[in-house]
Amino acid sequence: MLKVGIIGYGYWGPNIARNFNKCKGAELVSICDLDEKRLNLAKSNFPFIKAYSNPEHLIKSDDIDAVAVVTPVFSHFDLAKRALENDKHVFVEKPFTSNVSQAEELIEMAERKKLMIMVDHTFLFTGAVRKMREIIESGELGLLFFYDSVRVNLGLFQHDINVIWDLAPHDLSIMDYLVDYKPSAISANGTDHFGSGVEDVAYIAVHFGDNGFIAHFHCNWLSPVKIRKTLISGDKKMLVWDDLSSDEKVKIYDKGVNVKTREGIHDLLVSYRSGDMYVPRVDNIEALELELNYFVDCIEKKQKPFNDGMAGLRIVRMLESADKSLKNDGYKIKL
Amino acid sequence: MLKVGIIGYGYWGPNIARNFNKCKGAELVSICDLDEKRLNLAKSNFPFIKAYSNPEHLIKSDDIDAVAVVTPVFSHFDLAKRALENDKHVFVEKPFTSNVSQAEELIEMAERKKLMIMVDHTFLFTGAVRKMREIIESGELGLLFFYDSVRVNLGLFQHDINVIWDLAPHDLSIMDYLVDYKPSAISANGTDHFGSGVEDVAYIAVHFGDNGFIAHFHCNWLSPVKIRKTLISGDKKMLVWDDLSSDEKVKIYDKGVNVKTREGIHDLLVSYRSGDMYVPRVDNIEALELELNYFVDCIEKKQKPFNDGMAGLRIVRMLESADKSLKNDGYKIKL
Amino acid sequence: MLKVGIIGYGYWGPNIARNFNKCKGAELVSICDLDEKRLNLAKSNFPFIKAYSNPEHLIKSDDIDAVAVVTPVFSHFDLAKRALENDKHVFVEKPFTSNVSQAEELIEMAERKKLMIMVDHTFLFTGAVRKMREIIESGELGLLFFYDSVRVNLGLFQHDINVIWDLAPHDLSIMDYLVDYKPSAISANGTDHFGSGVEDVAYIAVHFGDNGFIAHFHCNWLSPVKIRKTLISGDKKMLVWDDLSSDEKVKIYDKGVNVKTREGIHDLLVSYRSGDMYVPRVDNIEALELELNYFVDCIEKKQKPFNDGMAGLRIVRMLESADKSLKNDGYKIKL
Amino acid sequence: MLKVGIIGYGYWGPNIARNFNKCKGAELVSICDLDEKRLNLAKSNFPFIKAYSNPEHLIKSDDIDAVAVVTPVFSHFDLAKRALENDKHVFVEKPFTSNVSQAEELIEMAERKKLMIMVDHTFLFTGAVRKMREIIESGELGLLFFYDSVRVNLGLFQHDINVIWDLAPHDLSIMDYLVDYKPSAISANGTDHFGSGVEDVAYIAVHFGDNGFIAHFHCNWLSPVKIRKTLISGDKKMLVWDDLSSDEKVKIYDKGVNVKTREGIHDLLVSYRSGDMYVPRVDNIEALELELNYFVDCIEKKQKPFNDGMAGLRIVRMLESADKSLKNDGYKIKL
Repeated sequence: MLKVGIIGYGYWGPNIARNFNKCKGAELVSICDLDEKRLNLAKSNFPFIKAYSNPEHLIKSDDIDAVAVVTPVFSHFDLAKRALENDKHVFVEKPFTSNVSQAEELIEMAERKKLMIMVDHTFLFTGAVRKMREIIESGELGLLFFYDSVRVNLGLFQHDINVIWDLAPHDLSIMDYLVDYKPSAISANGTDHFGSGVEDVAYIAVHFGDNGFIAHFHCNWLSPVKIRKTLISGDKKMLVWDDLSSDEKVKIYDKGVNVKTREGIHDLLVSYRSGDMYVPRVDNIEALELELNYFVDCIEKKQKPFNDGMAGLRIVRMLESADKSLKNDGYKIKL
Repeated sequence: MLKVGIIGYGYWGPNIARNFNKCKGAELVSICDLDEKRLNLAKSNFPFIKAYSNPEHLIKSDDIDAVAVVTPVFSHFDLAKRALENDKHVFVEKPFTSNVSQAEELIEMAERKKLMIMVDHTFLFTGAVRKMREIIESGELGLLFFYDSVRVNLGLFQHDINVIWDLAPHDLSIMDYLVDYKPSAISANGTDHFGSGVEDVAYIAVHFGDNGFIAHFHCNWLSPVKIRKTLISGDKKMLVWDDLSSDEKVKIYDKGVNVKTREGIHDLLVSYRSGDMYVPRVDNIEALELELNYFVDCIEKKQKPFNDGMAGLRIVRMLESADKSLKNDGYKIKL
Repeated sequence: MLKVGIIGYGYWGPNIARNFNKCKGAELVSICDLDEKRLNLAKSNFPFIKAYSNPEHLIKSDDIDAVAVVTPVFSHFDLAKRALENDKHVFVEKPFTSNVSQAEELIEMAERKKLMIMVDHTFLFTGAVRKMREIIESGELGLLFFYDSVRVNLGLFQHDINVIWDLAPHDLSIMDYLVDYKPSAISANGTDHFGSGVEDVAYIAVHFGDNGFIAHFHCNWLSPVKIRKTLISGDKKMLVWDDLSSDEKVKIYDKGVNVKTREGIHDLLVSYRSGDMYVPRVDNIEALELELNYFVDCIEKKQKPFNDGMAGLRIVRMLESADKSLKNDGYKIKL
Repeated sequence: MLKVGIIGYGYWGPNIARNFNKCKGAELVSICDLDEKRLNLAKSNFPFIKAYSNPEHLIKSDDIDAVAVVTPVFSHFDLAKRALENDKHVFVEKPFTSNVSQAEELIEMAERKKLMIMVDHTFLFTGAVRKMREIIESGELGLLFFYDSVRVNLGLFQHDINVIWDLAPHDLSIMDYLVDYKPSAISANGTDHFGSGVEDVAYIAVHFGDNGFIAHFHCNWLSPVKIRKTLISGDKKMLVWDDLSSDEKVKIYDKGVNVKTREGIHDLLVSYRSGDMYVPRVDNIEALELELNYFVDCIEKKQKPFNDGMAGLRIVRMLESADKSLKNDGYKIKL
């Protein structure tokens, strides 16, 4: 039985608590929040927990094996570091850390102390993403051409982080999970409309070396309509994921491009194929439930999760570089 | 009565011919095509025309006042130049020319000879674009935040020009028509998947100086689904144009962002408004019919059209810069 | 402070309890359920309530002013009658009763004892229905032509009542609320696919005397897709309500038919108008919350609610007649 | 080479002419129209034809083998009868005739004279309907539950026939083609809003004897939105045909209902299955082209077409009965 303490009971914390509480291999032991109101809410929801207003006390307590860090990103590094120093496994919200060196330090420490880090990329556990992974791994799409993601909406303005750090972790981690190619460079353009230094619209291009594959991400807090759509195109088949569709989330198109080069001639002969389309059934188990079961399972079996510190680091590296490019005229930053 | 000769009777030429033929102020006099089959088709459609297989002969003929150049872009400059030299007004396909200096030379020549150049940005004459222009000019959207355009599809691979020169002229010219700000720089990322040196996926960002306004264009020949959607966001209202919708092409959202800065405090206070949405009725007169009537009208009244050589030049300058940026790691090119 | 007891804590009961509990003018006092498990759930959710397994005990208790009957329809009459006999106001689930005579008896008794009956037609309190009522009352649609409703889905097979008694109460009550005309007759066609005597597909036509107005309802448990769409057409404007749309629930079309009769000529001159469309903002307060506040308010102010016993009776009369027509070859039943 | 004369060059006639003209096995010989303007248009489109203003002259001419009757329904019988009397095969617009006895007389005459009648149910030759036929014939949907069709729009008000005779021939003929069951009775409700005696909204239910299968048709000239949607549900799979969708016309849902009867217990055990959905590729050859080739082919091979006089008669019988039911309070008419 893995004993768990949670730091942070704001927007997302209650979901983490609820799911750890119903997870068979885990026991929810303690919750910490700086805000008394939130802490009282936690106590009323889970009357049996130990409640802390000082995270240090939770981290140091002997009755837990793991700490879930569900706080704003700027505090991830300190809290996770203290947790590791106190021999606790760590489950940490995305994005993993505020920069690459923090992520590297935590990974190194966890390795040394044989502790586990899992980064909460919840989307990777949704039915849609798992189904897409299955499809892409099977080779059904063939050689991948591009990955294009749009995640825009009006609202959810953040004050401490820009639209890249807010929205891109979702899609960068999904792309990282679905696509095997290794990114080589990143460039980003964007803008801040209210003079606050916090960009609210951003476009990120991720480049992949010699391979023609390209990935692109549109993140936007000022869109009149909510769009969450990803196109993934291959030479055999092509895929559209519309996360807002209730019953047609993933569509697989039997469409493709056939290219022949005529000998001694520079022209390409390009032709198109178009066949059936299908919508695979996607299961709707709560993603967080699956993820926390996986967290418990990985610790028990001493197995490295795929969403470990290294995965978190890959995303932070892309975020950091995108942000740097954004502040430098879209200059291409090598990864 | 404006007497018109048409050079080029391929994909688009027949539409130009049909519309000049029914235009009250114009008389369709002659058609030229290098391909005998196409020329025969022209003759069977319009038995009364003079048919030429050599454009030089059409251009030099005394019985026409204007030449419509409906050929691939590489030939626009030579044909338009010869037409101007022979004292003909010119109606030329988009994109205007293959580069900026050609466009400048044609404009200079036309000015000097008091002849008119009109560039065929047909989309500007559609009901949807005219309605959007009316809405934006009225100030209904308020201060503009961004312009985001997606024009993607599977197919229509071109061999001589890349996806930027093929698809972006539409949206760049529409943006140029709708938005009053002056672009200051452009950057583009993209990729070529078939080793032919012809990019098939491209992302273009257009920057606008100090103003936070940004425009972005996604052009793509390899998309599983056809999308032609533009978002235009302002601080008062926001607009979505879906060109593929049959009856809800333009949607105006009474949505907005209210931002206040608290004195002595760095935080922004951001709140959102959300009200009704409406879909204005958009008329469906054939755009090309309107445009050709406008062409005849402008010549008759010696009036400068809004889609003149200068408009064509502005688009060519953006295309040229986008292409240059694309070939230079997305480096930002000043306009 | 209105003191309330609830009978029935199955699918819908918990929502009634939760909303009475947060309703300022009401106090949730007691809950009854025959099933021990459900009753225990009620106690854990609301530790302060008195829990009964015998409805008679709840009804007879002195500490409540009103009883909410949230049980299957066959038990509504007995429970509501006992509640009225014991001088309690009654809030009862839809459909009000199993037949017309039961409804009439309850109404008569409530009148006599000066008690209130409210029938839980929750949909009437949704933002969309309130907005449509406002629009129709204002005369914006003009003279109404027809009301066409489709409510179909795969699933939710009931064993004790057929698809008419299950699905039609929603739309009949909404139509009753939105349309002022008085129905004169009803006819229904349908079928039972599994030999159980329980129809799973039904079509109901409601007729309205001399007036050309007609209403039609398609209820279906065997549809591959979920549709909840209502068309309401008038001579000035026309309306579409799509309850499954997240952000475009109600659309108002400035479309109409102009009809002229030429003197001495039999032909009609019919022409069509087509203008803008708009989507009014619809508020999303929980409908049940509004309804229960209204229940408390009406009792306090001794005011007749619009969804009173008479409203419930009108719906039951239509259901009973539709069912009768269904069993008699679609024969038209006078109301 | 089948020599063809066409009577009627109004809305649909030009399509018939164009397709006969390009049909390899046919020769377009003559066209007749009472209206001089229409006849002149025919002559300018097909300069080689013989033009008649009197249908009798066309019918009696020796240089044709077949007559296409493309006129309003009231004239079908007389023209087709004269054509058969003059030993011509007949291609006749839908609906076949104005009543059952006319259809029977024509069929009898054609049989006797060994001539062919084909009724122009063009929709049966569309890619979507052919694909659905293929799917249903293969047994993929299993035992059919119901057929539900909605064909509504604002406009196209007819003066001589009501909405049933105008819109229902399409869907009744498609249902007749797709479904093997034999209809036993029909009932219809509807209304006339303008006092002209011409119903503009109608609902038709078609019954099928003991079998639980039911078909229903909503025909409407006064709808704010255009809908052309058909649901076909079976116990194995279910199908939705949306004729207005450009790229997802036919959807096949792997959804179904499993029903078990527990021994000695009256309750049904109903459970639902839900799996993948797919959209088969539907070809887009012009339906009329296929149909006219089939017309020529059937005559050449002396083969009975599936859309022969008998098929036309089945549809006319349903239309006549629906109309009769409509005028008799929705009374169920035996077929």
